[in-house]
Amino acid sequence: MTEPNMDLAHLGHVEILTPKPDESLKFFTDVFGMTESGRKGESVYLRGWDDYERATLKLTASDTTGIVHTAFRTRSPEALVRRVAALKDTPHHVGWIDGDIGHGPAYRCRDPDGHLIELYYETEWYQAPAELKPALKNQAQKYPARGVSVRRLDHLNFFAVDIPGARRFFMDKLGMRMTEQIVFEAGEQAIWLTCTNKSYDLAISLDHSGVPGRFHHVTFAVDSREDVLRAADIALENGVYIETGPHKHAIQQTFFLYLYEPGGNRVEIANAGARLILAPDWKTIVWNEAERKKGQAWGLKTIESFHSHGTPPAPRKEAAE
Amino acid sequence: MTEPNMDLAHLGHVEILTPKPDESLKFFTDVFGMTESGRKGESVYLRGWDDYERATLKLTASDTTGIVHTAFRTRSPEALVRRVAALKDTPHHVGWIDGDIGHGPAYRCRDPDGHLIELYYETEWYQAPAELKPALKNQAQKYPARGVSVRRLDHLNFFAVDIPGARRFFMDKLGMRMTEQIVFEAGEQAIWLTCTNKSYDLAISLDHSGVPGRFHHVTFAVDSREDVLRAADIALENGVYIETGPHKHAIQQTFFLYLYEPGGNRVEIANAGARLILAPDWKTIVWNEAERKKGQAWGLKTIESFHSHGTPPAPRKEAAE
Amino acid sequence: MTEPNMDLAHLGHVEILTPKPDESLKFFTDVFGMTESGRKGESVYLRGWDDYERATLKLTASDTTGIVHTAFRTRSPEALVRRVAALKDTPHHVGWIDGDIGHGPAYRCRDPDGHLIELYYETEWYQAPAELKPALKNQAQKYPARGVSVRRLDHLNFFAVDIPGARRFFMDKLGMRMTEQIVFEAGEQAIWLTCTNKSYDLAISLDHSGVPGRFHHVTFAVDSREDVLRAADIALENGVYIETGPHKHAIQQTFFLYLYEPGGNRVEIANAGARLILAPDWKTIVWNEAERKKGQAWGLKTIESFHSHGTPPAPRKEAAE
Amino acid sequence: MTEPNMDLAHLGHVEILTPKPDESLKFFTDVFGMTESGRKGESVYLRGWDDYERATLKLTASDTTGIVHTAFRTRSPEALVRRVAALKDTPHHVGWIDGDIGHGPAYRCRDPDGHLIELYYETEWYQAPAELKPALKNQAQKYPARGVSVRRLDHLNFFAVDIPGARRFFMDKLGMRMTEQIVFEAGEQAIWLTCTNKSYDLAISLDHSGVPGRFHHVTFAVDSREDVLRAADIALENGVYIETGPHKHAIQQTFFLYLYEPGGNRVEIANAGARLILAPDWKTIVWNEAERKKGQAWGLKTIESFHSHGTPPAPRKEAAE
Repeated sequence: MTEPNMDLAHLGHVEILTPKPDESLKFFTDVFGMTESGRKGESVYLRGWDDYERATLKLTASDTTGIVHTAFRTRSPEALVRRVAALKDTPHHVGWIDGDIGHGPAYRCRDPDGHLIELYYETEWYQAPAELKPALKNQAQKYPARGVSVRRLDHLNFFAVDIPGARRFFMDKLGMRMTEQIVFEAGEQAIWLTCTNKSYDLAISLDHSGVPGRFHHVTFAVDSREDVLRAADIALENGVYIETGPHKHAIQQTFFLYLYEPGGNRVEIANAGARLILAPDWKTIVWNEAERKKGQAWGLKTIESFHSHGTPPAPRKEAAE
Repeated sequence: MTEPNMDLAHLGHVEILTPKPDESLKFFTDVFGMTESGRKGESVYLRGWDDYERATLKLTASDTTGIVHTAFRTRSPEALVRRVAALKDTPHHVGWIDGDIGHGPAYRCRDPDGHLIELYYETEWYQAPAELKPALKNQAQKYPARGVSVRRLDHLNFFAVDIPGARRFFMDKLGMRMTEQIVFEAGEQAIWLTCTNKSYDLAISLDHSGVPGRFHHVTFAVDSREDVLRAADIALENGVYIETGPHKHAIQQTFFLYLYEPGGNRVEIANAGARLILAPDWKTIVWNEAERKKGQAWGLKTIESFHSHGTPPAPRKEAAE
Repeated sequence: MTEPNMDLAHLGHVEILTPKPDESLKFFTDVFGMTESGRKGESVYLRGWDDYERATLKLTASDTTGIVHTAFRTRSPEALVRRVAALKDTPHHVGWIDGDIGHGPAYRCRDPDGHLIELYYETEWYQAPAELKPALKNQAQKYPARGVSVRRLDHLNFFAVDIPGARRFFMDKLGMRMTEQIVFEAGEQAIWLTCTNKSYDLAISLDHSGVPGRFHHVTFAVDSREDVLRAADIALENGVYIETGPHKHAIQQTFFLYLYEPGGNRVEIANAGARLILAPDWKTIVWNEAERKKGQAWGLKTIESFHSHGTPPAPRKEAAE
Repeated sequence: MTEPNMDLAHLGHVEILTPKPDESLKFFTDVFGMTESGRKGESVYLRGWDDYERATLKLTASDTTGIVHTAFRTRSPEALVRRVAALKDTPHHVGWIDGDIGHGPAYRCRDPDGHLIELYYETEWYQAPAELKPALKNQAQKYPARGVSVRRLDHLNFFAVDIPGARRFFMDKLGMRMTEQIVFEAGEQAIWLTCTNKSYDLAISLDHSGVPGRFHHVTFAVDSREDVLRAADIALENGVYIETGPHKHAIQQTFFLYLYEPGGNRVEIANAGARLILAPDWKTIVWNEAERKKGQAWGLKTIESFHSHGTPPAPRKEAAE
């Protein structure tokens, strides 16, 4: 047995595109309750009140939707060196960037679907301005009590046309562990990967559109299931499109709520309670087709758009549905 | 900078003594809602419904109270070898045991206060009998819906007369990280250590009794603050002594409830919401005397017995209070 | 304007039939967490821990399902006299019974669909045996901490073929107020009636089967939405059929979970938060067909069986669906 | 037995004084999350999102603190006539006012301590402006998701030097029922009165200062205990003085949090879960001195200021404590 590779520390931030930048920004600040922590060019940087880094969401104006890049922080500078060594002579290699608002030099690579992945170690710890100082010094920022008041970036979900390739990339090259998996006779449908004690930091679902590199959703965590229910109340009051939920996933047991932000990207508010994966040798839970037909934990049928709506839109196949 | 030592995977189990074994067992099964998963000699083995290992609490009949041993699971067999190598030629060394119900060979050592620590890798994953099979295959055991229904072992708190020594032992020898700390002019009062993404797995508080090696409390996690409140309702209805809480700690922000089980040991039910320490280079939060005088997060004064009640009793100094 | 008739104090108890008495009883005691408080003939009497009367659910063995009778307690003996005076010379009149376990003489009448209604004033306040004494003297019974631990009877829902007739009967003859109503072009689809500050004590839905006098569901209240979610977890773990939910109704904003007890009757666990109807002149909220097409509060489509499944079964029309 | 007098429908609104009007207003709108619904002279009118009337709190600038008047809505115009008839020839009589923002003509009287009480029937139902329209038509106003977002006015607590006199006034003259009571050998210490199915709408506590007519606190309701905990987080973050809580009262089992608004008046955020008094003949729960020495439900000792801090300040006796 090889010892686990612990080089990735956690999911750091994601950059998504929106064709409605003002409305999307208003959604993330007023409905999600995030805090703007930087601006540059066409991008606004945002954060949850418990995110220790300056920014966990980069919202970039564009003529379309989807994800630009996904960043993981490494556990140490040495860990970053090791990951680059493992990637630089492979087809995944892209190269270094100098950094961005909130973090230092980052190494870029691509997964088999083409999703752009950044690895970095140097980061900027958030320094709250006076009006956002928390009452307790072990907290990054004052609790906003505005809208959903999302706590922190939790996980990301890619759509991918090549699930086995993605699995090998994130496990073999980056050291993630697979906690759950859907495998039909027709092949792998989805995988859940972690680099922390959270039960997943990255999920990857099969994209039937055939368009590689699409984005499924990004998730922010709240403290309790009641917070997710309240988020649904808030979404309803603010005219936000509720795709499905609140309900409990059978897989990972996440208590979920899926919304579309005004730009069209799917976003999730979730809570998994005290659930953690503490076992270093957790055995992947594999779900088959019969099991998945039962729907979500309490019987809710998975909504059809959950299997088709990704961003950017994949025109032809979706039109055919 | 040295790379972090990730050899410990998580707190595995604790063994505590009770002079009232029948009443203590009834408390842990009926009030805490734990499941008995083994018996041997004077000991009963217990578990929360989400603990993946067979047992996380070993309850041993005795003529006194306190803690016998505390076990951490290592991340791999190699990690266990490394930790033993670091300890075997030191005064901490005790030696190997063959194993116990629920786990394989374990290496024993002692911290400076004399608390007995076990390190092991081989473990027995819990196999639920038919009547305790969960509905969802990614869960260890059926949710009991009996009493508090504690989810899993969360953390442990030692009393110690030598906090700096304990700090060096758990950090330097075992690789734990210190997330928070109380330092008065008179010296260190308490430390919080982690080997996971939880904000602490082990806390160590200064024991003013002068008696080394005592036990402060063991904590089991539930999913929400509402679950902690309900636990207080259940304790009240069942005549369990409530020492303090529910309230929110300023330190670590844990939402706590402290009870004394019938034998006299302090036990805690706690929830920290979605709070995790994701930063691999988390900077220890240090609290001084002025800050601690403010009491708990919302102003509750720390109850005096919290600073004196440990098990086993330390007769003379406690009598003098 | 006529002054409101306040003669009904509250819904008192309901009697339902089950062809699987042992399984149904086990469901209500182990899953719902109710307490058995009497037995007579083919009936078992049950109660929630906060019900002040001895019994709120009478479960009677039978070869079918459905509801036998529904009882309301009057506000005073005089109020009972007034209600009887208003009913005794009408086609609704049935007559007096001497009483039953838990209450004294009761006057029986029938609504236009034939649902049997009892009115009574004399009642037996629950006297908890020693092992069920509560810790706080302002509570009827110890909180059981077993299964869902339902708090109290909340409301009842009839199926009826004659909604306008039912509306006139319960409002004009019994003094209930209508808080919400569904009116399609084809006529009234459902009404919600109250005799307390709760937003409804009785709901009546149009039964398309054409069979009069059927039962839709009975509801027990819990304290929070989290309690309803936990009830869904418990139902899942115990193999109970979950028809729909948890979700939030648009109408009345009730947070609901619908289950079928083993006999086949629909039962609900619900929480409405702090919502109360305090206005003595509340204006009925009327929902039209377009509004109802939006589904439940957060968008869940109303499940088809919710419009057809009643007890006892109505064979022909249901088969045709 | 006399039939219960149901003439009062519910507590309608209260008017309190503040010497810091800007800060108090900011507290009620930003921290409590209330909505301003009117201004006149030195007063601002405020409401919770579920209050059906235009205003439930009238905040009036002054050079001191305390309560100006307390208003109850009657169940009907006839009920108002009856109450006036019962009061107009007594020492309680004050006379009529034409109305105020939010309601029509009101009859004023005084309880034995001199607290000014208003009775009215004609009221103004709140009409939300476009930006505050709720998504569901059975709700008065959009959920604000700002600060605590209190739901509705719940109850009021007077300090009084003459508890027996207050009891007789509110029960005999106004028709309230007494649900709980503290009686020491030295006499009545506090009473809890209701005119709804809530377990109390008005509490009156013995004022040891000897100053009549003081104010103890006003309470706004939220939906769950978690909402009360979150309110404590929000108070902490915003520098609001937390007097005591969150904890559960033994009496009435209310889950409470007591704050001082910037002017100095005590305000409470509370939740009682699904607890209702449905029995029309509820027997008053009487607590004696030994029982009260046990503190609150889970053992918290009642804070000393709870027995002394009232508004306006009563200088001499408080200084002597």
